Amino acid sequence: MRLIPLIPDEAFVFLGAQSRAQPLELVMDWRIYFDHSATTPLDPRVLEAMGPYLGGVYGNPSSLHQEGRIARRAVDNARRQVAALIGAQPEEITFTASGTEADNLALIGAVRASGKPGHVVTTAIEHAAILETCKFLASRGTKITHLPVDVDGMVRPEGLLRALQSNVTLVSVMAANNVVGTIQPIEELAQLTKLHGILFHTDAVQAGGKIPLDVKRLQVDLLSLSAHKLHGPKGVGALYVRKGVKLSPIIFGGGQEHGLRSATENVAGIVGFGAAAEIAKRELDEEAPRLAGFRDYLAAELLRNFANAYLFGHATQRLPGHLSFGFRGYEREVGKLLTALDHAGIAVSAGSACSAHHAGEPSGVLLAMGYDEQRARGLIRVSLGRFNNEEQVLRFLKILENAVSEIYGRHALAVSEQFEPEHEQDFHPANC
Amino acid sequence: MRLIPLIPDEAFVFLGAQSRAQPLELVMDWRIYFDHSATTPLDPRVLEAMGPYLGGVYGNPSSLHQEGRIARRAVDNARRQVAALIGAQPEEITFTASGTEADNLALIGAVRASGKPGHVVTTAIEHAAILETCKFLASRGTKITHLPVDVDGMVRPEGLLRALQSNVTLVSVMAANNVVGTIQPIEELAQLTKLHGILFHTDAVQAGGKIPLDVKRLQVDLLSLSAHKLHGPKGVGALYVRKGVKLSPIIFGGGQEHGLRSATENVAGIVGFGAAAEIAKRELDEEAPRLAGFRDYLAAELLRNFANAYLFGHATQRLPGHLSFGFRGYEREVGKLLTALDHAGIAVSAGSACSAHHAGEPSGVLLAMGYDEQRARGLIRVSLGRFNNEEQVLRFLKILENAVSEIYGRHALAVSEQFEPEHEQDFHPANC
Repeated sequence: MRLIPLIPDEAFVFLGAQSRAQPLELVMDWRIYFDHSATTPLDPRVLEAMGPYLGGVYGNPSSLHQEGRIARRAVDNARRQVAALIGAQPEEITFTASGTEADNLALIGAVRASGKPGHVVTTAIEHAAILETCKFLASRGTKITHLPVDVDGMVRPEGLLRALQSNVTLVSVMAANNVVGTIQPIEELAQLTKLHGILFHTDAVQAGGKIPLDVKRLQVDLLSLSAHKLHGPKGVGALYVRKGVKLSPIIFGGGQEHGLRSATENVAGIVGFGAAAEIAKRELDEEAPRLAGFRDYLAAELLRNFANAYLFGHATQRLPGHLSFGFRGYEREVGKLLTALDHAGIAVSAGSACSAHHAGEPSGVLLAMGYDEQRARGLIRVSLGRFNNEEQVLRFLKILENAVSEIYGRHALAVSEQFEPEHEQDFHPANC
Repeated sequence: MRLIPLIPDEAFVFLGAQSRAQPLELVMDWRIYFDHSATTPLDPRVLEAMGPYLGGVYGNPSSLHQEGRIARRAVDNARRQVAALIGAQPEEITFTASGTEADNLALIGAVRASGKPGHVVTTAIEHAAILETCKFLASRGTKITHLPVDVDGMVRPEGLLRALQSNVTLVSVMAANNVVGTIQPIEELAQLTKLHGILFHTDAVQAGGKIPLDVKRLQVDLLSLSAHKLHGPKGVGALYVRKGVKLSPIIFGGGQEHGLRSATENVAGIVGFGAAAEIAKRELDEEAPRLAGFRDYLAAELLRNFANAYLFGHATQRLPGHLSFGFRGYEREVGKLLTALDHAGIAVSAGSACSAHHAGEPSGVLLAMGYDEQRARGLIRVSLGRFNNEEQVLRFLKILENAVSEIYGRHALAVSEQFEPEHEQDFHPANC
């Protein structure tokens, strides 16, 4: 039997629902949700796996009685599933409440365990969970070096090599960027770091479940994941800690998670993370090319149909469902465009969700990539996921065309006269 | 429509279930779960409130589009519900991932915000979330004072008064103890602290939703709560931070929760916490006396029917559903008794869940209360909750009698011959 999720009364106002019981598929049908880098819908199969732990199985995994032991088994099983996603051993997985907490534990935990303020080398385009943690560490005496990136958002190994000094505690480079989707050469960077005997951490919150990740091949010591970015529940993350790596905890108490993260385990959430990891791993080989097909079709259509469209990020080393673009000359009106799209049923964003309330301000990631302030203001991020389909991709392009034409004027559409509207219906993005 | 929770296949082995779909009520019927201080079953009404946020409503509250705004509203609404439980303003509530994290944020956050190592005054009987955090602070130079407690587990105001020196940053005293259930005179203690202009924190993880708590009346500056202790979901906690109190965050990133706790909000969990808080508040006046009746009946029957039974904790200032006891002379066999009870369908514990794997070792709380090592080994904790009923209380006593008689011998039963078995059936604990 399936749990049928509902949407609440207040959501009707927004979603225009007719009835109280609205399964995910229906909501995904009314709206075109293209903001999977912010968060993803919970996969109904994940909810099904969580169901028991939201009901009759409610024990505390630390309890010795049957209720507790059943909960402990569920957590252990999920630990195996999450470990398998990244080629780790189950005991190398520490569950946290978020990717952010995993990043904090990696950086603060490694610096504290080293016993000295030390030196953290990271990049200029990391997520706030890394950049703000580095600021905190800096306030306690840790030296922080931000590696530059090139115009594609790529960290150059030479840059890392120059920064590697003997006092470096840890290098932290994200596996894939949340704003432009660029995938970093983690294996190469980690190898350089390893030669110097320095710890390597990667924030794989955006990459997890979207591209193959194998901690043994990548040779990373620490890797952060978040369940809600891969169609799992919000409120659960994980840190891979390679066997032998010493970390200090940042939350103290009952000593759960091998003493690294105290608190009663979020059993249902952890079970959901496990199920989401297993599904992502199993479907990756089919799903990644499907989403990459949509992305490449969108990119081609944007450049073809919009006069001033330009793309951000690396041409090939990019997350499958991720596309960032802008319209030259219309950068200041990006907020207006996003609002129009939202009213027309489309959810996209102006960069990371954390910085959403600063829409219209230049993106720090783009500035670090060398874009000037004007260009860095104009970013629109489209990120696709499991429940998106071809029809939505085509509908998105039509609605975008209407919105751009309305806000920026018809001249913002490049060569729209050259194509019959019917033509678009024949186009099969999955084959592009 | 209701979400019907299931139990997983692996649980059958333990629970002896016949069919896959087993709603909470059925599980609660097979088993007698008397370990609510460890964790509580999710109230089906709470799950119903969470349902939409595990399905069609999946946005990131930081996103500006409709999906994000609906999620934001849900979090705001839950913030009002949790605030109402303790008489706080919504903006004074910071959601965390656990009571443990709330405790950590209160203590580490206050010490850091003070700008100096300072001095934390706490008690000898706090939860590990406080004691271990104090150890961490001590390792960074903070002076820690542990107030003594009397034989009932009560902190004496005179003791606090003696400890209050000008350099004290914060006083942290739990509202109710997790091992013996003793309720502390928080109002009195906080008032003393206030006179000295010192911050007062209370860990109300065990007390929340079980006894009336009003932050204005109690005059506390900081108060920790946990959802899973009041029939809400695991993985969500909250810290009340009185307006004007300065705290530094312990997790850094996107700046969620007024900058105090970064990470994408656990929307479904937070919604569940809100619903659980609202139900607990609404039903407190009926539920507290009901559970207190069970507790007092159990206490009376224990002393009447078991030769060597003795009780721990305060005679009257005790959590409604909480009873801790032991059998004199049989302290070393408490593990055997708990196992026998578990096999007979009863979940009780030998103290806090976090220390469950140290069963048979003396409880630190009891040692601090002045019990010798032998007595401190013998603690059995019974903690009742919303789905427990009279029939379970009576059945528990019968099963306990059988187990004690089997393990300790018939002589451990005091005066069992004096009573006809039928007599127990006539007894109505709720009226005791």
